[in-house]
Amino acid sequence: MKKIVIIGGSAAGPKTAAKAKRMTPENEIELYTQENLISYSACGLPYFIEGTVKNINQLIIRTPEDFEKQGIKVFLEHTAQKILPDKKCVIINGKEVYYDELVLCTGAEPIKPKIKNIDIDGVYFLRRIKDGIAIKEAMHEAKKVVIIGGGFIGVELIEAFVQNGLSVVLVESCSRMMRVFDSEFSDMIKNHILERDGQWVEMHFSQEVEEFISDENGKFTKLITKNGLEIEADFCVIASGVKPNVELARDAGVEIGVTGGIAVDVSMRTNVPNIWAAGDCTQERCLITKRPLYASLGTIANKEGRVAAINLTNCPEVCERFEGILGSAITRYFNYTIALTGISAEDAARIAEKFDIHPISATVVKKDKAGYMPNSENITIKLVADKKTGKLLGAQGIGTGDVNKRINTVTSALQSGLTVEEFLHLDLPYAPPYSSTIDILLTAAYRLNGQIKDKNW
Amino acid sequence: MKKIVIIGGSAAGPKTAAKAKRMTPENEIELYTQENLISYSACGLPYFIEGTVKNINQLIIRTPEDFEKQGIKVFLEHTAQKILPDKKCVIINGKEVYYDELVLCTGAEPIKPKIKNIDIDGVYFLRRIKDGIAIKEAMHEAKKVVIIGGGFIGVELIEAFVQNGLSVVLVESCSRMMRVFDSEFSDMIKNHILERDGQWVEMHFSQEVEEFISDENGKFTKLITKNGLEIEADFCVIASGVKPNVELARDAGVEIGVTGGIAVDVSMRTNVPNIWAAGDCTQERCLITKRPLYASLGTIANKEGRVAAINLTNCPEVCERFEGILGSAITRYFNYTIALTGISAEDAARIAEKFDIHPISATVVKKDKAGYMPNSENITIKLVADKKTGKLLGAQGIGTGDVNKRINTVTSALQSGLTVEEFLHLDLPYAPPYSSTIDILLTAAYRLNGQIKDKNW
Repeated sequence: MKKIVIIGGSAAGPKTAAKAKRMTPENEIELYTQENLISYSACGLPYFIEGTVKNINQLIIRTPEDFEKQGIKVFLEHTAQKILPDKKCVIINGKEVYYDELVLCTGAEPIKPKIKNIDIDGVYFLRRIKDGIAIKEAMHEAKKVVIIGGGFIGVELIEAFVQNGLSVVLVESCSRMMRVFDSEFSDMIKNHILERDGQWVEMHFSQEVEEFISDENGKFTKLITKNGLEIEADFCVIASGVKPNVELARDAGVEIGVTGGIAVDVSMRTNVPNIWAAGDCTQERCLITKRPLYASLGTIANKEGRVAAINLTNCPEVCERFEGILGSAITRYFNYTIALTGISAEDAARIAEKFDIHPISATVVKKDKAGYMPNSENITIKLVADKKTGKLLGAQGIGTGDVNKRINTVTSALQSGLTVEEFLHLDLPYAPPYSSTIDILLTAAYRLNGQIKDKNW
Repeated sequence: MKKIVIIGGSAAGPKTAAKAKRMTPENEIELYTQENLISYSACGLPYFIEGTVKNINQLIIRTPEDFEKQGIKVFLEHTAQKILPDKKCVIINGKEVYYDELVLCTGAEPIKPKIKNIDIDGVYFLRRIKDGIAIKEAMHEAKKVVIIGGGFIGVELIEAFVQNGLSVVLVESCSRMMRVFDSEFSDMIKNHILERDGQWVEMHFSQEVEEFISDENGKFTKLITKNGLEIEADFCVIASGVKPNVELARDAGVEIGVTGGIAVDVSMRTNVPNIWAAGDCTQERCLITKRPLYASLGTIANKEGRVAAINLTNCPEVCERFEGILGSAITRYFNYTIALTGISAEDAARIAEKFDIHPISATVVKKDKAGYMPNSENITIKLVADKKTGKLLGAQGIGTGDVNKRINTVTSALQSGLTVEEFLHLDLPYAPPYSSTIDILLTAAYRLNGQIKDKNW
């Protein structure tokens, strides 16, 4: 019998606990969290704010009672302060808790940009359930909101606020939004949002926020950027990304990777014996570049929790490996899907010399179904490949039609290192309500293949 | 300069002509067809009958004039009677037409079951534009139709007729419908159709039709099966599959494959010098079993036409290869998607001994999106793999949610011979409107992996 102690209760922690208990009911499992609830879907929060998800409880996947019933001890509002690896012990709420295996699922927290008066009322981050509730309340009393950060959460929040009748101002420090995409996709996404909702939505790029101004009650009234732009609003949400919570780990001698996340091997072990890590606090590996990559996503947290549980209950045997990720991501702006997998052409160009690759790309606009079907929609797909090896490197897609299907299809191809030539005649199921006879993915592959076969380079 | 003669005008023929002309404008290209139009989407016919596609002209992709403008000579209502390979000549409408390269795109025609009085009025096949128009006219004067054959076209026709207020009787000679699927999927599809539309739809299995009965005007009134079942209806559509048109080829010494289709190599060459074939008249190769497979689909015809054009204009160099197909197929019954790729568990079991494989499968029912999203729907996905090698062999999916995306994702995995272990943690893009945190595909892969890792077998 082992005692397994898990720190963190959002996604990876509960997953590790539940899986480990199912595999080895004889083990004692304790899960500690600073919060007053566990096992929730943070990625559903924008849809709760929007009103698509009516009740916050719908985002709670399993309650502490569910875990207790399974024989897992859950400790809410407990803060892990220090790990003493030599004693195999964690100090939690001032008390020593001993472990045979310790799993760090300490998650991530919002990046706090350097803005004067950032801690005033009326300035929100979106990370936890309570943040979602607070923002929704603020929204219901407001007519205008300013969002700092034009990434995935930024786009989801614009949708939520527009849907609720607010005027929205987006302020982005970079020259474009959705920076994991190539520039032309950033522009198309921006243009789509402004074409649809330009009367409610205003965007400012290359604007770094310097200061927040509050009223006599200490509540946010406006922001001022370094360029002197002033934006008044009823409240502000900062969506500038997240950073992994690794202080507890670092302090215990656990290695932190170059991305800032905890370094783990394919079994989810850290460098310190009997200490494992999973979820938003860890660093992943990009399967395309083979380099470290940091991603904070519920789906990855769940996979890593699973792998950690399988391996720590079987150790020293490694029974399941987590090899890495493709950087896949998706969101929507109402009926407009925005998705990618692998690396962009601009990212590929940046690493071209170092990796000795010669990136090429093909962008195709085509109907997602047979053009004569009444609900067929244009979508835009860009495929990126390496001209030297012929290997696919990534795909980006946007549009009101079925983009997701195409990006998903490319994930499998990237996972197996498929070349454009191998991908070229992929036997995708075809019928008029689902695809054109030659799917847009294959049209893009044909164009890439033409570039690869072109001997003049 | 070469003279390229193409026989057949539906999909592969026009594709070959257009691609060859674009690649080598100097070549003379002649396209001959028995029909009075070319280049149309036969797979759109059920949606024309249904009324989803309003105008038959929408199914015509390019007109003869479009081809003439491109410099391709089109000969409508011309029948190729005989090939004289030694003279490099085809007899068409009684005249000798000389070629440097000949491409056979003679397509397929409906299988005519052995039924007494099959040629009476009121009995239809659905293959060509004129068939679609005739069936639509018959439908508008009818209250009840009987369909013979419960495959893809059968299902599409049930939808079309139900949508137009007809009573529909399906008669199937086999004990179940949609036979390329595993039996339990056949049952689920049947049950779904009957649950939704049982008041309009009646199905009879294991019933072989023996005879059609006509009224005094020689028009269909009822059918009688070998078991004595009698079904009255206003008209009858036979959808018992198709067979390749290969008589012209066979007569010229072109090799016919075991499936009945013309045998071609990866460049789309036949065994006879300067004779190529593409589209519904050819035999394909299954990429899973590596065995000959016959498929009649517009998407494959287009791919083969492309490959034939590229290679015949470059020959003897082979510039693009068509390696084979996965047997992928999809259709819908209203909002219910029915799709598969690769081989079914039952097919795998049939070839298990010969191929030394040990088929395993996992079937999962799960929401297609985060369960808390209001429009999430249950879908059913079955993955099939080989326990010995761990390789994925196929996938089947049904449901009112996004089935297509999952099946497409598996096609890439099959194309590259991915194992379950490699597929297990596939980084599919995740957001609540698109997937659950652990996608149904990965849940199925986890279950398969459990079976593979189970040493007790």
